[in-house]
Amino acid sequence: MKIFFLAISLFLVLISCTDVKSQKNIVETVNKTDSTTIKHIFNSALSNGQCYQWLDVLSNDIGGRLSGSPEAQQAVEWGEKLMTDLDFDKVWLQPIMVPHWVRGKKEEASFIVNNTKINVPICALGGSIATLENGITGEVIEVKSLEEAESLGEKLRGKIVFFNRPFDDTLIRTFRAYGGCVDQRYAGAMVTGKFGALGVIVRSMTNNIDDYPHTGTMSYGDLPENEKVPTAAISTKASNLLSEKLKENPNLNFYFKQNCKTLPEAPSFNVIGEITGSAIPEKFIVVGGHLDSWDIGDGAHDDGAGIVQSIEVARLLKLNGIKPNHTIRVVLFMNEENGLRGGKKYAEEAKINNEYHAAALESDSGGFTPRGFSFDKNEKNHELFMSWKSLLAPYGLHDLNIGGSGADIGPLNDGAISLFGYRPDSQRYFDYHHAETDTFDKVNKRELELGAASMTSLVYLLDKYLE
Amino acid sequence: MKIFFLAISLFLVLISCTDVKSQKNIVETVNKTDSTTIKHIFNSALSNGQCYQWLDVLSNDIGGRLSGSPEAQQAVEWGEKLMTDLDFDKVWLQPIMVPHWVRGKKEEASFIVNNTKINVPICALGGSIATLENGITGEVIEVKSLEEAESLGEKLRGKIVFFNRPFDDTLIRTFRAYGGCVDQRYAGAMVTGKFGALGVIVRSMTNNIDDYPHTGTMSYGDLPENEKVPTAAISTKASNLLSEKLKENPNLNFYFKQNCKTLPEAPSFNVIGEITGSAIPEKFIVVGGHLDSWDIGDGAHDDGAGIVQSIEVARLLKLNGIKPNHTIRVVLFMNEENGLRGGKKYAEEAKINNEYHAAALESDSGGFTPRGFSFDKNEKNHELFMSWKSLLAPYGLHDLNIGGSGADIGPLNDGAISLFGYRPDSQRYFDYHHAETDTFDKVNKRELELGAASMTSLVYLLDKYLE
Repeated sequence: MKIFFLAISLFLVLISCTDVKSQKNIVETVNKTDSTTIKHIFNSALSNGQCYQWLDVLSNDIGGRLSGSPEAQQAVEWGEKLMTDLDFDKVWLQPIMVPHWVRGKKEEASFIVNNTKINVPICALGGSIATLENGITGEVIEVKSLEEAESLGEKLRGKIVFFNRPFDDTLIRTFRAYGGCVDQRYAGAMVTGKFGALGVIVRSMTNNIDDYPHTGTMSYGDLPENEKVPTAAISTKASNLLSEKLKENPNLNFYFKQNCKTLPEAPSFNVIGEITGSAIPEKFIVVGGHLDSWDIGDGAHDDGAGIVQSIEVARLLKLNGIKPNHTIRVVLFMNEENGLRGGKKYAEEAKINNEYHAAALESDSGGFTPRGFSFDKNEKNHELFMSWKSLLAPYGLHDLNIGGSGADIGPLNDGAISLFGYRPDSQRYFDYHHAETDTFDKVNKRELELGAASMTSLVYLLDKYLE
Repeated sequence: MKIFFLAISLFLVLISCTDVKSQKNIVETVNKTDSTTIKHIFNSALSNGQCYQWLDVLSNDIGGRLSGSPEAQQAVEWGEKLMTDLDFDKVWLQPIMVPHWVRGKKEEASFIVNNTKINVPICALGGSIATLENGITGEVIEVKSLEEAESLGEKLRGKIVFFNRPFDDTLIRTFRAYGGCVDQRYAGAMVTGKFGALGVIVRSMTNNIDDYPHTGTMSYGDLPENEKVPTAAISTKASNLLSEKLKENPNLNFYFKQNCKTLPEAPSFNVIGEITGSAIPEKFIVVGGHLDSWDIGDGAHDDGAGIVQSIEVARLLKLNGIKPNHTIRVVLFMNEENGLRGGKKYAEEAKINNEYHAAALESDSGGFTPRGFSFDKNEKNHELFMSWKSLLAPYGLHDLNIGGSGADIGPLNDGAISLFGYRPDSQRYFDYHHAETDTFDKVNKRELELGAASMTSLVYLLDKYLE
């Protein structure tokens, strides 16, 4: 029995070795075809890319395109025309209604009143109400968290609450630092309005210590009208200065003025372009970004980059003679920044029409040099995706991690779909994010093109290996 | 016998499994200490870095610092003072003689003469002679390689030879594209002067299509004085335009004027700072970059970044309480750009003094986001270095490849030393390299600091694991 056991054991060991070896051969054959195709994709993106020129038009000719604005409408028309000109099999507009917040035309202003007046850069947060026409002035209470503000309760009455928790610079991925701070911007007014605060100012969401205020969406939650207070971001330099001055004089005043308001909801559109699948056209793979941007920059990185890269994916597939099995849908989502109406609508319609979506990929982390992809948890195809590591590594795509995909494609998550986010290098992203510095000149042509090629390569693999 | 064989086989299989497991445990324990230390290094670099502020001074207060210039001397004094102020155990200047080429104060100019005059951006290459005082004018022969120029022979007489082979944009690492073109800049005059060419113009060494000429070193080799011709770089846009115009009119003329000259060699210095080793002070690890730069930008990326990162390595080691076994030498090499006198001198002196150098690391690829390290071939410690991959990967340092280190540390190569080059992302490097656009504002603070932390981590590992 012992001998038999030993013999069987050794047999099993040998068998498993052989098995591994033959599997390895198969994988290597597959990879060789795929690696050649991916090399062609990158070659064509880098030598014959068009996305950078498209981004020039979207950023410089159209510019900032907040939901409901004339520029957002121009961007819709531009996207529809571009995909039509590129001979997509089908291009259409998907109607939605979007929030329509405007900054107002009059100047925004703010200063610290402490013996002398010190002007500081400020901008209203998206969704905020205006101040009184001549602005508001009040003493400042500096806090570092929503919890701290809550705990102060009635002490906030009549005060301007100053949320000043900075980014954690030691986090290598800057999105994590953003994630650790952005609650102050989003919910600062929500938690303080009920205590009778006069207004809210928030440290800008960036690692950089500079003079640019960064806007972004905020919410009043369920607060009644009389508890809503004007809310704005001040630059990080201004935040550091104000904090210093408060140490010298806790009773100093802060003044700010803004003219923003929320208008009735406006009609707008997702823009959708399709390459019909050759084998399973009834199954879809989505690639997209968001067409809207904030108003104070030209939205080149956020998310003009994702828009032009997504369109480039379809062009590069065609250019390289790749006929996808699935139907590839390029979706230019509207209203990611302050409502997510586009993402929600797309998913709703997909459900109503009983459409099967195999995968979706979003690019909404800027047009920087490639680092990898992240994908949503609960993946049935985890091993398959990880097996692509060696195919993607030669292009700097080393990070293939679980962890989020994109806001616009999130509503498609039915537990079955594979959701991916393109992850470029994040070091410079929050220098520009939601600030007037998010402009075309901050985008490097090769980095943008490498991103488009990275995304095309992933879509190629998803289309080939997913059902 | 069969039974015995089977039993032995199984025993061996089981033993080898156990062995792998216990080895793995050892590796994991070692890695845990190292990964904690490396995390601390990165934390301190990102939250308390100083290299960005130093680079501001070197770039903006001192500026471009070509060998032999007053700015190069200022940079020497700045480096010596900084390392002294940082309490290095020893700081000294190592005297060298350097080539002293100057661009001259009068304007450089060039235009295409084709019905009308079209001005194009130009700059003299380092080492070139001047044109006649009023410039030179001649017909243009466009070539794509040194070989093509050679093959034209006597046809070059009296002509301006235009080297116009562009970067290969499909190469992911832009240094490879540079490597595939730079012979035109370095040796264009060398191969054409003997045929009586009137002058040489070279397409700028960059992927970018823009208006900035990129200078760089050139050589006449052994040509006699009467065969040396003025040599300059024109911008890539100008190169494309000239090439187009030549297709319309092969007899068009090109004019250029430059006032550069080579003065007698000048005295200068390598600047060296030392942290004395705690265990084996007689063994050295060098970390460095080059202090000189070209004259037309402020040399922030090339190689101000490498200089301040190298000094930061020593500061971060001290700040984190790491007492190196080896003596760590920070070397600010002079004259990498047009002579390599600093690198050669350092190696010469090391040999004379019979110094043992365990390793050297150079940063001379810009202050961009980390990608990894390359190291010279013939490495006895290849496996050791590769075992650090998982320690470095969390910081974006995935590329750990054989392939060159740095020009300044190259002369130290005695077959025994381990030579490393820091390799940041290369996509933007040649946008700025040797052009007036290589300025401080092109450097991102976090990217620079991540580089310094990457280098510190490698020096920590080299110090710990090498003899």
